[in-house]
Amino acid sequence: MSTILQHDLDIRVRYAETDAMGFLHHSNYFVFFEMGRTELFRAQGGSYRVMEEQGLFLVVVKIECHFKAPARYDDLLTLTTKIARVTPVKLEHEYEIRRNGELLTTGRSTLACIDRNGRVQRIPEVIPGLESE
Amino acid sequence: MSTILQHDLDIRVRYAETDAMGFLHHSNYFVFFEMGRTELFRAQGGSYRVMEEQGLFLVVVKIECHFKAPARYDDLLTLTTKIARVTPVKLEHEYEIRRNGELLTTGRSTLACIDRNGRVQRIPEVIPGLESE
Amino acid sequence: MSTILQHDLDIRVRYAETDAMGFLHHSNYFVFFEMGRTELFRAQGGSYRVMEEQGLFLVVVKIECHFKAPARYDDLLTLTTKIARVTPVKLEHEYEIRRNGELLTTGRSTLACIDRNGRVQRIPEVIPGLESE
Amino acid sequence: MSTILQHDLDIRVRYAETDAMGFLHHSNYFVFFEMGRTELFRAQGGSYRVMEEQGLFLVVVKIECHFKAPARYDDLLTLTTKIARVTPVKLEHEYEIRRNGELLTTGRSTLACIDRNGRVQRIPEVIPGLESE
Repeated sequence: MSTILQHDLDIRVRYAETDAMGFLHHSNYFVFFEMGRTELFRAQGGSYRVMEEQGLFLVVVKIECHFKAPARYDDLLTLTTKIARVTPVKLEHEYEIRRNGELLTTGRSTLACIDRNGRVQRIPEVIPGLESE
Repeated sequence: MSTILQHDLDIRVRYAETDAMGFLHHSNYFVFFEMGRTELFRAQGGSYRVMEEQGLFLVVVKIECHFKAPARYDDLLTLTTKIARVTPVKLEHEYEIRRNGELLTTGRSTLACIDRNGRVQRIPEVIPGLESE
Repeated sequence: MSTILQHDLDIRVRYAETDAMGFLHHSNYFVFFEMGRTELFRAQGGSYRVMEEQGLFLVVVKIECHFKAPARYDDLLTLTTKIARVTPVKLEHEYEIRRNGELLTTGRSTLACIDRNGRVQRIPEVIPGLESE
Repeated sequence: MSTILQHDLDIRVRYAETDAMGFLHHSNYFVFFEMGRTELFRAQGGSYRVMEEQGLFLVVVKIECHFKAPARYDDLLTLTTKIARVTPVKLEHEYEIRRNGELLTTGRSTLACIDRNGRVQRIPEVIPGLESE
């Protein structure tokens, strides 16, 4: 099993993601966090797409974000996604977004796993970082 | 069968829909057009949601939009959605968006109907305006 | 000064806001919360649009959301937006989203006020709920 | 002046961009086209961001898209952006989106240039492909 628990992803701010204040609208950070989870899992050798095709879905139970400084159109951001904690029923990630090394945003999320009928499932063992019980 | 072929919908421009130019970003007009189709169909006594639950999906084949004047945050827009033409395999709509009577945007779309496997189906007869063959 | 500190807003889930899981994508809840703040302030007799035209901008410093049950396309949701706390430099809101009375989501945000140059300003007195110092 | 009139950009479909049908929602293609214009201009040595800082804004006057086959979550798409025609007052682009060589979508847009006050300006000469009058 992979021991990769962290991944860096470069994201260019799109014009459509800005708002009338001239800033990256805050709702987009949650889209970025999701991209980070996809790419971290890919770096670990997994695929959320395949997991979904097999009938398992990771859903966000709780998510938060702290904004320290705004980003703007065409900024090249680096999102760091870390697995903070994995239990049999919960998957916790932490996020940091930087621009040229300056920390702009931090985030944290808790995910659970459900099947096609919405029933809670154990976090699949393909997710690295699962604590032994 | 209903003979309602036109529907007006009021839409308030959200902050998240604006861009750094201070305008409603142009990609959102296509989201509005889709809302217009949903509400026109509801006014006709139908439900896209129920249609989908029954396994029929309306997909956009072609869509276009002409922009005459921009909209801004908090503008109250009126979207007029009209059925322009219905054939056994195609559904054409026309759209107009106004602010206080001023025409800001016009659009036009062509939809087709598919089943869960992506195969093209006849436009369901519940869609008003279907021309007799 | 108005003493309205709470506002209910009905929001219909748009097709474009759903995701491949069939649910309202979680990033959209933050867009809804912002709509709730706009409408609460309008109900209080204010206008964020006018505030911005006068050079004051409310920016999100911290935001979080807890998801208890998913929403789907065409669901009619009721968002309750409450002012939880106002200090000279911070504005805290709480949010609840219900569908037919069932609580789906709760949220909480902290906003600050900045001027055109990004400098922190006192929360304007037009915001109801400001604690006397 | 650069003679680069075409640019290829790889775009990974985000989960938030999918809809309940399981497809990339059609409104996102217009966001992708805009990314293509940004990157084509960058490849030519220009910067839309700098152009905006200098007070010139490119606005979409007309845009259209034809959908041949859907894209899905995690698909890696290639967007080809071409300058089709430049006149003193109009900038026309053509777009093609492919997945593993298969053509999924084509588009076409017309842009105009305005200043901060919304007055139409000549297309700046830094835009390659400007026809001599």
